[in-house]
Amino acid sequence: MRHVVVAGIGQTAFGKFLDRNVRSLAEEALSAAVADAGVDYQQIGMTYFANALSGLVTGQETIRGQVALRNTSLMGSPIINVDNACASGSTAFHLAWLSVASGQTDVALAIGAEKLTHIDKSVTFGAFAAGVDVEERAHLQREAPQGHSVFMDIYSERARRYMESSGATPEDFALLCVKSRQAASLSPWAQFRQPVTTEEVLSSRMISAPLTLNMCSPIADGAAAAILVSEDVARSLRARRVYVRASKLVSANNDGDGPTCASRAADEAYEYSGFGPEDIHVAEVHDASAPAEIMLYERLGFALPDQGVKLLREGVTSVGGRLPVNPGGGLLSRGHPVGATGIAQIVELTTQLRGNAGKRQREGAEVALAECSGGQIGKDSALAAVTILSSFQ
Amino acid sequence: MRHVVVAGIGQTAFGKFLDRNVRSLAEEALSAAVADAGVDYQQIGMTYFANALSGLVTGQETIRGQVALRNTSLMGSPIINVDNACASGSTAFHLAWLSVASGQTDVALAIGAEKLTHIDKSVTFGAFAAGVDVEERAHLQREAPQGHSVFMDIYSERARRYMESSGATPEDFALLCVKSRQAASLSPWAQFRQPVTTEEVLSSRMISAPLTLNMCSPIADGAAAAILVSEDVARSLRARRVYVRASKLVSANNDGDGPTCASRAADEAYEYSGFGPEDIHVAEVHDASAPAEIMLYERLGFALPDQGVKLLREGVTSVGGRLPVNPGGGLLSRGHPVGATGIAQIVELTTQLRGNAGKRQREGAEVALAECSGGQIGKDSALAAVTILSSFQ
Repeated sequence: MRHVVVAGIGQTAFGKFLDRNVRSLAEEALSAAVADAGVDYQQIGMTYFANALSGLVTGQETIRGQVALRNTSLMGSPIINVDNACASGSTAFHLAWLSVASGQTDVALAIGAEKLTHIDKSVTFGAFAAGVDVEERAHLQREAPQGHSVFMDIYSERARRYMESSGATPEDFALLCVKSRQAASLSPWAQFRQPVTTEEVLSSRMISAPLTLNMCSPIADGAAAAILVSEDVARSLRARRVYVRASKLVSANNDGDGPTCASRAADEAYEYSGFGPEDIHVAEVHDASAPAEIMLYERLGFALPDQGVKLLREGVTSVGGRLPVNPGGGLLSRGHPVGATGIAQIVELTTQLRGNAGKRQREGAEVALAECSGGQIGKDSALAAVTILSSFQ
Repeated sequence: MRHVVVAGIGQTAFGKFLDRNVRSLAEEALSAAVADAGVDYQQIGMTYFANALSGLVTGQETIRGQVALRNTSLMGSPIINVDNACASGSTAFHLAWLSVASGQTDVALAIGAEKLTHIDKSVTFGAFAAGVDVEERAHLQREAPQGHSVFMDIYSERARRYMESSGATPEDFALLCVKSRQAASLSPWAQFRQPVTTEEVLSSRMISAPLTLNMCSPIADGAAAAILVSEDVARSLRARRVYVRASKLVSANNDGDGPTCASRAADEAYEYSGFGPEDIHVAEVHDASAPAEIMLYERLGFALPDQGVKLLREGVTSVGGRLPVNPGGGLLSRGHPVGATGIAQIVELTTQLRGNAGKRQREGAEVALAECSGGQIGKDSALAAVTILSSFQ
């Protein structure tokens, strides 16, 4: 497999943009990434377009990428639509990497765009449930209050189990949100940039105990894009080179026992890249809820089992800490336009590895990790993706 | 890139199965393909799952493959959901090929499953329209009779233009249907196996002139699967080896002028494989309507412009002819469970290249071509896929 370089990145701001559609968001992220890379549209040999919920939110099922990108010069090159729920963007990135690494094309595009806000909120909430098996969902929805994401019940149940085993408290989850907002306040792209206090987080509306509103990832619109190129092409471009050192996708086991797919994806990525958790300088992870980020510290090997909360309390994972996690604000504060999220993680980490992250920069960042999970099968996410990037090869 | 072998194939019968779901169809096709290949489920390193319309027909948006395959031993290996409208299965096949050709895995699965029939027919028809840009669709739907696929208006307009330029007549389109049913009558998998006469085709209900009901591809449920392996793995398996010689995906140009994406995909596949149209012994093409197949003879280089209808009239493309096209019945008679179709084409051609097609066998078949188009952007399909297979490397 050839070396692959992240040569261009771009994204829209994430937020509630009722007047914008998938096309307008995708076009903005794409043109930013193309300009950043300094490539021509005509060089892009393969496009992977990630979108999870347009079928149910906007009615555009199938050929979503071709519809979103039809006014761009990408038409004429293959556009492949992919979906793996919250890991859709990571899946697009993985396939773009594969197409360059394998020599199929020298320049590939991974782009994710999602339009979730709708004047009728029940459309958005209904679509969100689609990341769960339709049979399980019927059961969960009977249990859940109306207009309520079934995912938050799954997350709250996990949070309660984690509190029991680790001694973590709702105050810790609130602290995670404070950290998240602090980071987001330093990012121009984040949906929620207003700092919050632990008191504010704890007193926000209870969604599914112990999760309050601020502990749950919000609904957002947005798009993000990454252009991946071969090393030969990268040499002709101006940006500081960021290399893809591993890109692994792992699905849930059907027994639901043993390590989660996030753990297994991380192990595979560490093995493939030769890096270990101790080598990671900065990470972006799938904090669909505040406790999820803390549990991921353990699943990714940053902390021992039930010790993740210590990293948080000690400030290790804050901006300015040794291992900032979600310096871009994560899902909780950057926002979560589903298909775009996995690529927005890459945008943030590439910015960090280029040394361009301004006040949220991890000084000396050379190795970075992104983790994103998608959907729900039995007790685990349906799939997890782990990517490792570095500023050297 | 490594040589890639189609080592296992399987499919369900195609038809109207109101009592079956995507999972049941996918499981049947998968177990047939695994048994045919003689591989273990655990060897499958990567799965590409094609489905186009479940979001709108069954409500299962996102993680469709994980939901369909959750009771199989595939869980634990990556499952990637892809969609490119009618070319969804071809896209899954392309990516499975890429993952083996690139060395990412030694055994990959392409599987397509679609559940289209619904007790409420308007659900099915509504979903079908989703292969058209949502904005164009709104316009087309105002023009179309209720419960009517907007695609057939697009196809009928093309058919009328083709009749003008080529001199083809509705009788020719009826003859195509007679040929299609003749082939399907020899296949155990086809939805419509009852021979028809040109009179019956011409007198079936008018859908969108000149297209009668029999000239339009039907609604079907079904699944198909193909297991692709590296040449090393293939040597340990018992089946006669069928090689993937080219797998090309091409999107529509945004200007809509110049050659169609089917033509361009064919040109790329010929160039990549070193074969030309004169080398093809048997083909499966995207006959979403009867005239479409005739036009494809020209786009794929089997006939000169406006001369396609001659091949049909002379019996060249019938079972028993020099170049049988759609010996498996095509979309018109095998049926068209959207996500499964592109892989069902591969199933038929692999059967032909193994010499196992019984009464519909093209004697001496060594080189085969599959073409599948998906969606609609402006004047052209959104995307076309062309695959070339051969019984030798």
